[in-house]
Amino acid sequence: MPSNLPIGIFDSGVGGLTVYRALHERLPNEHFVYLGDTARVPYGTKSLSTVERYGIENAKFLEAHGIKLLVVACNTASALALPAIRKAVSVTVVGVIEPGARAAVEVAAGKKIGVIATEATVQSAAYTSAISKINSDIEVTERACPLFVPLAEEGWAETEVARAVAEQYLIDLRKRDVGALVLGCTHYPILRNLISEVMGTDVPLIDSGEAAAREVQSLLESRQLLSPEREVELRERQLCDDLDHFYVTDAAERFAKVAERFLGMSPSILEAVEVWGHDELRTY
Amino acid sequence: MPSNLPIGIFDSGVGGLTVYRALHERLPNEHFVYLGDTARVPYGTKSLSTVERYGIENAKFLEAHGIKLLVVACNTASALALPAIRKAVSVTVVGVIEPGARAAVEVAAGKKIGVIATEATVQSAAYTSAISKINSDIEVTERACPLFVPLAEEGWAETEVARAVAEQYLIDLRKRDVGALVLGCTHYPILRNLISEVMGTDVPLIDSGEAAAREVQSLLESRQLLSPEREVELRERQLCDDLDHFYVTDAAERFAKVAERFLGMSPSILEAVEVWGHDELRTY
Repeated sequence: MPSNLPIGIFDSGVGGLTVYRALHERLPNEHFVYLGDTARVPYGTKSLSTVERYGIENAKFLEAHGIKLLVVACNTASALALPAIRKAVSVTVVGVIEPGARAAVEVAAGKKIGVIATEATVQSAAYTSAISKINSDIEVTERACPLFVPLAEEGWAETEVARAVAEQYLIDLRKRDVGALVLGCTHYPILRNLISEVMGTDVPLIDSGEAAAREVQSLLESRQLLSPEREVELRERQLCDDLDHFYVTDAAERFAKVAERFLGMSPSILEAVEVWGHDELRTY
Repeated sequence: MPSNLPIGIFDSGVGGLTVYRALHERLPNEHFVYLGDTARVPYGTKSLSTVERYGIENAKFLEAHGIKLLVVACNTASALALPAIRKAVSVTVVGVIEPGARAAVEVAAGKKIGVIATEATVQSAAYTSAISKINSDIEVTERACPLFVPLAEEGWAETEVARAVAEQYLIDLRKRDVGALVLGCTHYPILRNLISEVMGTDVPLIDSGEAAAREVQSLLESRQLLSPEREVELRERQLCDDLDHFYVTDAAERFAKVAERFLGMSPSILEAVEVWGHDELRTY
């Protein structure tokens, strides 16, 4: 496998840009191809079989594009569909749940762990299960925070409204005296400051996207697949520059607008595509 | 066309239950077949062509079921896809925009009109255009309120958080001294009391679903298609009883839970189906 291939990232929509940013910061010589499934977003209220189907279609689209590794940025897809996706493609697949769980266990040092995520991720108990595989003595409390997503997309992270929502959602977790809180949805890092203020700044927040980026780095290192520096020697890499290619399945304009809000800029190269191929549809 | 056929209703998800309730109250002798496209909800952040495609698939599914009239309960689908849906099916199609616009013009009596809706409905300016077709002198202000949907689904309608969100969204509309405010999304009637308190109880709220129910009644009357009373003479009709059939495209359990929140009960007959047929998919 050539080391100069891009890393593929898919998400249910725009939230995965926080994972893209974490990967870009950690691996500035890599380039990326990002797919946001904006025609079918959100995944967080959908069922296992539907999320599996969407995840497989997205993964196949990116694999066909030629990638050296696939990051499933979406927590819901990571929680529900990782085994199905791994079966469907031959490229190595990294999700965000296991890296996030490992980072939380390290940081919490034996104390309780809190997880905030979408309804579907919480219902799957994927974080609880991943944490207890590492240390079955750790008590885990999961809480769905569905309003955090539209708050982040509205650009309301710093408002009193967002604070009131956060206090409502986090009140029980705050009482439980957790040793770490996992931000188990790609949108939540946008609300990081607020969540930290409400939980208390002494509670470490675990960004699963950052944890996944560390895992990607170590995987690429061990397989000698890190992009050679000469690939980009002539240019200073920037977030969203034209070495990174962004695809959405719908409403590119809205994606660009929210990207601006999340990253301070929008992609140079952004294209609307359809990922649901005839191949998949025969099974309907 | 036999008058004892059901009335078809589709919505992007669970919100259309407020339209179902309005229809049921106004037409207690009718029975209904409801489709919630929960696999692809929400429509409010999606593009014209995608909403058209979804709307056509839903309409064809219900037409194949045998209905005497189709109500597009979803404001976004009504705003974006009504012409495409009318072309695709032969049954009469009633949307919620025009009835809502007419009711608003009547009630506002020449004063300004406010409209709150999803991002896609606001961007389409469908209400403004429908209102100005009736009276081009009326000034219309539209405002997207995306957080209202998850607030309603969380069951947070009566909370301080919801009040803070409503004040943020409605502050400009309140200043404009509107003579009527259109609730241009099926979820918003769930927040009716709150919206009324924030706007001032002297501002009439127009429920587009109720307005559409009036239009359905008058259409059925004029075509002599009202269900004969004998159809249901042996039973007292109840909301969600087993004469009404509910379909969802995903996550039936979540639908039932939110239905309980919206209607105080959940459907007796609720079935998960797929509405995307091979027919449509050939065009990909």
